Amino acid sequence: MNAEIITIGDEILIGQIVDTNSQWIAQQLNKIGVSVYQITSIQDEKQHILTTLAEAQTRANVIIITGGLGPTKDDITKKTLAEFFDNDVMVEYPEVITHIKTMFAKFNIPFKPIQNQQALIPSKATLLKNRFGTAPGMWFYENETVFISLPGVPYEMKALIKNEVLPRIQQQFKLPFILHKTLMTYGEGESNIAERIEDFENNLPQHIKLAYLPSFGRVRLRLSAKGSEKESLEQELHLKVEELKCLVADIYVGLDDNNSLEKSIGQILTKKGKTIATAESLTGGKIAASLVSIPGSSKYFLGSIIAYQEDLKVELLNVSKEHIKTYTTVSAEVAEQMAEGALEKFASDYSIAVTGNAGPTTDNNDKTVGLVYIAIAGKEGVKSFEFNFGQPREKVINKTVNKSLELLLKELR
Amino acid sequence: MNAEIITIGDEILIGQIVDTNSQWIAQQLNKIGVSVYQITSIQDEKQHILTTLAEAQTRANVIIITGGLGPTKDDITKKTLAEFFDNDVMVEYPEVITHIKTMFAKFNIPFKPIQNQQALIPSKATLLKNRFGTAPGMWFYENETVFISLPGVPYEMKALIKNEVLPRIQQQFKLPFILHKTLMTYGEGESNIAERIEDFENNLPQHIKLAYLPSFGRVRLRLSAKGSEKESLEQELHLKVEELKCLVADIYVGLDDNNSLEKSIGQILTKKGKTIATAESLTGGKIAASLVSIPGSSKYFLGSIIAYQEDLKVELLNVSKEHIKTYTTVSAEVAEQMAEGALEKFASDYSIAVTGNAGPTTDNNDKTVGLVYIAIAGKEGVKSFEFNFGQPREKVINKTVNKSLELLLKELR
Repeated sequence: MNAEIITIGDEILIGQIVDTNSQWIAQQLNKIGVSVYQITSIQDEKQHILTTLAEAQTRANVIIITGGLGPTKDDITKKTLAEFFDNDVMVEYPEVITHIKTMFAKFNIPFKPIQNQQALIPSKATLLKNRFGTAPGMWFYENETVFISLPGVPYEMKALIKNEVLPRIQQQFKLPFILHKTLMTYGEGESNIAERIEDFENNLPQHIKLAYLPSFGRVRLRLSAKGSEKESLEQELHLKVEELKCLVADIYVGLDDNNSLEKSIGQILTKKGKTIATAESLTGGKIAASLVSIPGSSKYFLGSIIAYQEDLKVELLNVSKEHIKTYTTVSAEVAEQMAEGALEKFASDYSIAVTGNAGPTTDNNDKTVGLVYIAIAGKEGVKSFEFNFGQPREKVINKTVNKSLELLLKELR
Repeated sequence: MNAEIITIGDEILIGQIVDTNSQWIAQQLNKIGVSVYQITSIQDEKQHILTTLAEAQTRANVIIITGGLGPTKDDITKKTLAEFFDNDVMVEYPEVITHIKTMFAKFNIPFKPIQNQQALIPSKATLLKNRFGTAPGMWFYENETVFISLPGVPYEMKALIKNEVLPRIQQQFKLPFILHKTLMTYGEGESNIAERIEDFENNLPQHIKLAYLPSFGRVRLRLSAKGSEKESLEQELHLKVEELKCLVADIYVGLDDNNSLEKSIGQILTKKGKTIATAESLTGGKIAASLVSIPGSSKYFLGSIIAYQEDLKVELLNVSKEHIKTYTTVSAEVAEQMAEGALEKFASDYSIAVTGNAGPTTDNNDKTVGLVYIAIAGKEGVKSFEFNFGQPREKVINKTVNKSLELLLKELR
């Protein structure tokens, strides 16, 4: 069972938007046991779409197409699909117009004749109702391959995938099981880890694959297993995970579904009924954003104070002016005071604070580019850590975010 | 002149990471006049890579491949490229090992024999020095097509593209000019705009294309022109932009390169020498993050207070308890007090505050899901605005961010 994802529209090809839709769809398909073989972004040109559909059909059983379904002239997906399916004729679905009119009335948007086009669907397609938008989804089945066309607007696409597409795929095909387990490690590079686990890797069975996913000071080791029997596969993968854990025990942080650090932190805080706040400088709110990205984070995340300037660190976080003079803002002392300040201001159980120099220049202090201090405070006191994350700027900021979350998780454990 | 981007490695295909590399590369290529015809993500399987390279070669003159260059077993790009180029032999570059050793010594990482592999490069390739990492880039030229292989780590790839790849492409090919101009509009849907500008669109010459890019309450209209003569093309596009501006004058916000609202706000604040701070609830720091995303934002962005809980709105932003009791936290009154609180705390010239209910449930107040209040404060006073952004949650949050930035820009103008 292979799937391919095709995105239509040149906003991705000119770099105007990032293709987050494909990532999300790939996740959902993997969860139900459908592997994604290829993701392709193409322009909204008829011939290019037709060729891509034909090529995908030779490789995949499920083809999901997003984008190009607006009512305007540059959206040609629907017409091209009709052409692809032997010049299919269009059929009108009056309920689509009723739905659009109801939706528009709610927000006082006048209905215009151009919207009538949204109700025209190729006769070979099954209509998939789009609750949140005007363009319906379409489901085609031909030669044991399913073609699904969806609007590109993320929240419309997501609702359609969840409510309409996934259940139909599960009904249409007998799916294998795909299981992924990702071990997160930190503190050691990809090549060193590879050396340690060379024998383990060489002895993996064909249906279990290992991948290295390095990113800013952490390397994730992902084992992927595919099979027809869920229970035996789970057991087999479990054994391999345990074996691998032993080999990397000293650098192992935890199992990871996607953003394990943030998730694990959330789970522990929720379980303990504790709260957290952040005080950030160089990361500009990125640590807070990572914590907030987890659903249910409002239970334990109280807030954040983002203070760029020296004065604001003093005023909003009670950092002492004397300390700044003596140690400069990029110092363990200031990081610790920021953490204590956040703890007090938010009356949280824990806080995390960062200060550093992300570069490219060193501004008005003498501290090296890449120098970062991270402090964690709790009811028992405050601790701080010094790092040199080198350069460029992007790397320093991202390493600071990851390292902060790692330290916090360790502390919570 | 067409380019294709190929990403290798299944972390994109299983949805573990979003492909931000391709977006960035596409932007850079478009800027120098190279159109991207297709972006393809494939697994690190030899046969799949070979087929994809061969297909791309029939369509493009520039093929950029990222990923799969680590020293570990799952990284097979280099070997596969050698095979693609008639089973090319590997040549050792001792300077690569020297570079890795120097880099590792700086961070006290021991050098392991596995790293020696990074110094082996197919004989037909020109080596591209990777300042920030261990895997060098490679440049192949065959049958008037350039193949460029780069590491997948974003900051390594970016430095290679800027310093090595783009200058070589410009030297190798005579490039056409591609110009994009994007007009940002808000307050009207895609289909209504399409109706208004139907004649304009029908009369566009072949080499100028129009695209609609709708997103959470704003629609961007992008005109793309391609030609060989820069000056005449600029003039022609300018006239079309002016013509289009007149047709959408009442809903036009500004010209947009990418994130115009944030950029325009930054430009005005920098020019005026004014500062801004935010106070956020439902957006969890997303407005701050948008402002901070612009390079140089530290000049005018002072910081942010993210306060989820009622108590924290009272303590950190001086919102009155009485107001919350009388009006609830989701009210114009509270939004205004939050904005005033931020203005005072950060001593900024302007502030923006948001409070609302993003759903899915209405918590402990009676306010409708989707109800949002946005307040903007300045030295002359405070204003607030009420919206109903419907649902789901993601849409409410994103519409709140966009609308806040739009209102702020209007206010600054």
